Amino acid sequence: MRAAVWHGPRDVRVQDVPRRAPGRGEVEIAVAYCGICGSDLHEYADGPHAIPVGEPHPESGRAAPLTLGHEFSGTVAEVGPGVTGFAPGDRVAVEPHYRCGRCARCAAGEYNLCAHFGFAGLMGDGGLAERAVVPSYMLHRLPDGVSLRQAAVFEPAAVALHGVRRSGLRDGETAAVVGLGPIGLLVVGLAVRYGAGRVVACDPSPARRALARRLGAAETVDAGGLPPGAADLAFEAVGSGRALADCLAGTRHGGRTVLLGLGGTVAVDAFALVNNEQSIIGSVGYRDCHGELIRLAAEEGMDFTSIVTSVVPLAEVVRDGFRALLDTTEEIKVLVRP
Amino acid sequence: MRAAVWHGPRDVRVQDVPRRAPGRGEVEIAVAYCGICGSDLHEYADGPHAIPVGEPHPESGRAAPLTLGHEFSGTVAEVGPGVTGFAPGDRVAVEPHYRCGRCARCAAGEYNLCAHFGFAGLMGDGGLAERAVVPSYMLHRLPDGVSLRQAAVFEPAAVALHGVRRSGLRDGETAAVVGLGPIGLLVVGLAVRYGAGRVVACDPSPARRALARRLGAAETVDAGGLPPGAADLAFEAVGSGRALADCLAGTRHGGRTVLLGLGGTVAVDAFALVNNEQSIIGSVGYRDCHGELIRLAAEEGMDFTSIVTSVVPLAEVVRDGFRALLDTTEEIKVLVRP
Ligand SMILES: [Zn+2]
Ligand SMILES: [Zn+2]
Repeated sequence: MRAAVWHGPRDVRVQDVPRRAPGRGEVEIAVAYCGICGSDLHEYADGPHAIPVGEPHPESGRAAPLTLGHEFSGTVAEVGPGVTGFAPGDRVAVEPHYRCGRCARCAAGEYNLCAHFGFAGLMGDGGLAERAVVPSYMLHRLPDGVSLRQAAVFEPAAVALHGVRRSGLRDGETAAVVGLGPIGLLVVGLAVRYGAGRVVACDPSPARRALARRLGAAETVDAGGLPPGAADLAFEAVGSGRALADCLAGTRHGGRTVLLGLGGTVAVDAFALVNNEQSIIGSVGYRDCHGELIRLAAEEGMDFTSIVTSVVPLAEVVRDGFRALLDTTEEIKVLVRP
Repeated sequence: MRAAVWHGPRDVRVQDVPRRAPGRGEVEIAVAYCGICGSDLHEYADGPHAIPVGEPHPESGRAAPLTLGHEFSGTVAEVGPGVTGFAPGDRVAVEPHYRCGRCARCAAGEYNLCAHFGFAGLMGDGGLAERAVVPSYMLHRLPDGVSLRQAAVFEPAAVALHGVRRSGLRDGETAAVVGLGPIGLLVVGLAVRYGAGRVVACDPSPARRALARRLGAAETVDAGGLPPGAADLAFEAVGSGRALADCLAGTRHGGRTVLLGLGGTVAVDAFALVNNEQSIIGSVGYRDCHGELIRLAAEEGMDFTSIVTSVVPLAEVVRDGFRALLDTTEEIKVLVRP
């Protein structure tokens, strides 16, 4: 079968790989759609960052070269020994977090913080392939009204939903969203759904600002244009010290800033943070979000595929996926159809 | 009457000032005890920081030179027009936060974040004097079993209690406290009282570590000695980038660090903060804490005067108060008895 395999930085190859039968507790998925994530771009541009090289990942047992792609949906093709609750033909969304089930955070239900933290498609083989084999605990069955295309966006939507939950958003609050990549845009839509009285979205791209308005933003501003101290809470979805400073300046005394972007070392004015009684809240991955996203899609008709700007074939994933996303700002979410 | 008046950096004078009759809504207190706070030391060493110079503070109407001291208790000497609920002879603790009562944060009950934020003793005349005149809303009457000496420690204890509340401490959690000045020591005692399963206290001073153990710390370590990732939450009571980094390294994934110290610009590893899903929570002043502290003292016999290392006369406040606290680490909390 064909798969997009990471061999090294700027070296992702669409190639033949052997099809693997699902082992105990595993399921083989015929992949319908797989999105390309910012972390995939980082691995493509100048990885490895999360991809294990040499030493295999403890949960996947895999190291590079491996198949990328962790935002995927598809149809169950084959179930391995010991798998119950799934059968060939089932339409599923994949929640690609590994979890060991034994560490302190897993025991506390916080499996996004598992000591063996990892994702299929980064620390193990993923969904940029015709078939993917994953543990059955990663699967969520889709009701009839929810499409496989919608389901391919649940993974970034789960990141956004977890961030909104971490923010402690209360009814009527004003939320600022800085950075309108896929996560920022999904935060806009979900913050509105979960009670924000007003969402102000911030990005240099007019096209992304327009999309934010379609997703429910009441106001959009250019980068650096947040009104000072006006928001109750902010979401930093860029991953830069500048964006974090914008969030802190754009929130009121007592306000919260949720960090969703993966920046490096940033300078923080701790004096102001204390005096203004602000908080900076890290948010990584998600836990217990997919069920709610399926419910929102099935029962409330929420559809986040408005962030999808292109659907491309697997053969063109490097040119029309990775390079298009790295070299232009026109693409937001690219889905690959293997 | 005699008062310790801030004229400029390294220029605090114990001098005669005119006694002022309480105006509408004000009460005159015969001061019993007034503690010296780290912020007083900052003003003494290299102020002004918070002290208004030239432009008077909007709530107090005062600017330098003014009387220092915001950690005080005493007896009501005279009540001004319109004051109800207090009479001469009442023993009181003073909660020295100004509040305008009209801004958005005051309206939300978060008066520690009042737009006209300020303290008697920094932005207006305070308690390092024989008498102090303050708005009656600052007063809390003391029950018979609570001494004026205990009450002089309620102000730093309120800072500590507010920080513990901001931390979201849950029963059985392990808390690290970095920095065993008065606030850090009070956090140790209050974290134990509010359900911490284990408190690990961190400071270079053996004497302060010994006091932390008396206040309930299960374990004490030298600066930089926190076991990595072991705590559920941490309190940064130093005000330095190094202490913040120690707190983040000493807490688990998903952990929280409450910032109580007033540092400057610090470097934060935002990548680790997100990946470890940690939070940094600013905490300033207090709100609605004094009633609870009085209850703890009256009903549970909690007594925080173990942090008091000296009681000195007003005439010697500069030598035995400011300079002793700045030049040695032996003093922890100095009370002045005017
Ligand atoms: Zn685990
Ligand atoms: Zn106010």
